[in-house]
Amino acid sequence: MVSELRRDPTSGAWVAIASARSRRPSDFKIVHGEQKTGTCPFCPGNEHMTPPEVLALGREGQEPDVEGWQVRIVPNKFPAFSLDYEDSTDTDIPADGEYGLYVSTPAVGIHEVVVESPEHDSTLGEHSQKQMEDILFAIISRFRSLREDDRLRYLQAFKNWGREGGASLSHTHCQLIAIPIVPKVIQVELDYAKQYKDRTGKCLYCDTVEKEIEIGERVLEESQHFLAFCPYASKFPYEAWIVPKRHNQAFEEISRDELADLATMLHNVARMLELAFDDVPYNIVWHTAPWKGDFSAYYHWHLELIPRLARIAGFELGTGYYINPTAPEVAAAALRESVS
Amino acid sequence: MVSELRRDPTSGAWVAIASARSRRPSDFKIVHGEQKTGTCPFCPGNEHMTPPEVLALGREGQEPDVEGWQVRIVPNKFPAFSLDYEDSTDTDIPADGEYGLYVSTPAVGIHEVVVESPEHDSTLGEHSQKQMEDILFAIISRFRSLREDDRLRYLQAFKNWGREGGASLSHTHCQLIAIPIVPKVIQVELDYAKQYKDRTGKCLYCDTVEKEIEIGERVLEESQHFLAFCPYASKFPYEAWIVPKRHNQAFEEISRDELADLATMLHNVARMLELAFDDVPYNIVWHTAPWKGDFSAYYHWHLELIPRLARIAGFELGTGYYINPTAPEVAAAALRESVS
Repeated sequence: MVSELRRDPTSGAWVAIASARSRRPSDFKIVHGEQKTGTCPFCPGNEHMTPPEVLALGREGQEPDVEGWQVRIVPNKFPAFSLDYEDSTDTDIPADGEYGLYVSTPAVGIHEVVVESPEHDSTLGEHSQKQMEDILFAIISRFRSLREDDRLRYLQAFKNWGREGGASLSHTHCQLIAIPIVPKVIQVELDYAKQYKDRTGKCLYCDTVEKEIEIGERVLEESQHFLAFCPYASKFPYEAWIVPKRHNQAFEEISRDELADLATMLHNVARMLELAFDDVPYNIVWHTAPWKGDFSAYYHWHLELIPRLARIAGFELGTGYYINPTAPEVAAAALRESVS
Repeated sequence: MVSELRRDPTSGAWVAIASARSRRPSDFKIVHGEQKTGTCPFCPGNEHMTPPEVLALGREGQEPDVEGWQVRIVPNKFPAFSLDYEDSTDTDIPADGEYGLYVSTPAVGIHEVVVESPEHDSTLGEHSQKQMEDILFAIISRFRSLREDDRLRYLQAFKNWGREGGASLSHTHCQLIAIPIVPKVIQVELDYAKQYKDRTGKCLYCDTVEKEIEIGERVLEESQHFLAFCPYASKFPYEAWIVPKRHNQAFEEISRDELADLATMLHNVARMLELAFDDVPYNIVWHTAPWKGDFSAYYHWHLELIPRLARIAGFELGTGYYINPTAPEVAAAALRESVS
C-alpha cells in the first residue's frame, strides 16, 4: 500500500499519509517513543531482518546481507515514501483542484536507514575517525546516486537519537528520505539567503561564519574547513550548527579533505553534547540545496544539531516561534567546558 | 531579568531567549517533561503560591487570591514575555542591522496561566458545560482587554496537556502568551487565505466547512455554530479542528450563543480523544486574526487539537512537512466510535 502526499490548503504544508502504517487507537502506546527491545535488526548477524541492503562499506567484494560491514544502508521496512507506483513517472505536483482544498500526489521517494556501526552501543561521540568518515562517505554516495532520479527533488538526511529524539530503535543510525518536493524549510532559507545576497552582495552563511569567529563567544570549535557554533537565535537550548567555511550549496559536493575534517567536527560536537548531558536526546538535520535549479550564488549547506531538552508544544505549534531558556552564549561556554 | 527576542537571519523565525530561565546543563532533567510533584500551586488554598491573579470567576465581589473561584488567571511565575521594560513604548521591530545578522528587540508581552478548574484531577473532557463556558469566557475577556495595548500584536492561546504535550504541571490549565509580532504560522495562513479569496472570491475555511459536511467521512460532530473534523491533510494522527460556521476572523468576537455551543463542542472532542486513548497528551492551539489590520474579508478563526502520539523529529524539523501514520478518515471513524 503506497502513501499519499496531501497538501494542507491553509498553509501549503505537505503531509505523507502513510497508509502502510495506518494505526488505530489501540496501536499507539501512549508512553510512546519507547524504544523497541528484543533482537536488534541492525546488529551483525541479523541482516536477514532488514530489507536487502542498498550499500555496505567494509566487506566489498563479498556477498550482500551478511556480517562484516562497517556501515550498512537498508530500505526502511515501513517506508513513508516509495518508488513503487504503477505510473511513477506521473509525479508532477498537481495544480489546485476544484476548490484547491483537496490536492494530493503519490508519496514518491525513498526511505532508507544508515546503520552507522556494527556496534550496538556506540554513539556518534564514541565512533572512531574512520567510522565517522565511512558514515559520511556512505551518505554522500546515496546523495550522488539518488539525485540522478528525475522524480526526486530533495534528500532529507537526518539522525534521530534517543527516545525524545524520535528514535524507535536504539542501535545508532541515521535516516535518508528523498521526496518529490522542495522542503518548506529549505524554500524559506533559499528566499532569505537570496534576499541577503541581493541586498549585500554577499552570502548570509559566509558572513555569519566570519562574524562568529570575530565575536568568538558562541564558537564551539573551529577547524580548517568548518566552524561549529551555537547560533545567535538558537531555537532550542544547546543547539549547535556546523557550517563549512567554503561557500558551497550542496553537502554532496564536499571534497575528500572536507569530509575528513567534517567527520572530526561532527564527532567532537556530538561528544560535547554527550559529555555535557547524561544521555541527551537530539536530532541532526542536514540543510542542503535542492536538486533542480542552481542556488550556488547564495545558498550554503550546513548541519543543525538540535538537543531535545525543551518540548515543542502549544506556543511553538501556534506561532512557529520558540522560547529558549538558555542563551546561546551560555550554552557555548558550557559545551566547550564539557570537553576541557 | 527580561527576555530578548532574537531573529534568525536564515529563516526570519523569532526566538525569545528567556534569560530569567537560563539553564546550565545540570538544570535539565534528561527524562525531562516530568511533571512536578508536591503541593500544587493551582489548587484552591494555594493561591499565595502564584503571582497575584489578573482575573477570577466565581467569587466576584470578594477579596482576590483566596479560594472560591471557578476559573482563575494568573501571570506565569517565569514569564517568557513581559511588559516590564524601562522604555516599553520602544517596541518597534528594528530594521536589519549592520549585516542583518544580529537583530533583537525586547520580548515585550504577557504570559499568563488559565487555571481551568479548582479540581486538580478534572480534564477538559470531564468539565461541566458551565465550567467550559467559564473557561472560554475568561479567555475571551483577556483577549478583549489585551488587544487594547498598542504594543501587542497577537495573543497566542493554547493548552499543553500531559507530559508529551509539554505540561510541566498536571493541574488542568491553558496558557496565554501575548507577543509584539504576528506569528509566522498565522502570517502564512493569512497569505494562503487571501490567495484563495483572490482566486475564488470565497473564504477558504467557509468552503472547507461546507465540503467537509458534504463529504462527511472526516466529520466528528456538527452543531448549530461549529463543525469538528479531522482535516484532509492532518499533520498529526487524530488531529481535529473546530471551525465556526459563521465567517468571523477573530475568536474574541464570538457571540454568547456561539460561546455556549463551542463549550459543548470542545468538551465533546476532548472527550473523544480521552476515551479513544488512555491518558492522551495533546495541545490545543487557537488560530485567530492579529490585532493590527483587518483580515475579515478572508481570515476565519479556528481551533486545532493536536494529539501528541507521533514525535516531531529530524524529518519534520528539516522539511517542515509531516508523516502521519493514520489517515484522517480512519481517525475520524475511530473518534466517533469512542463515544458511541
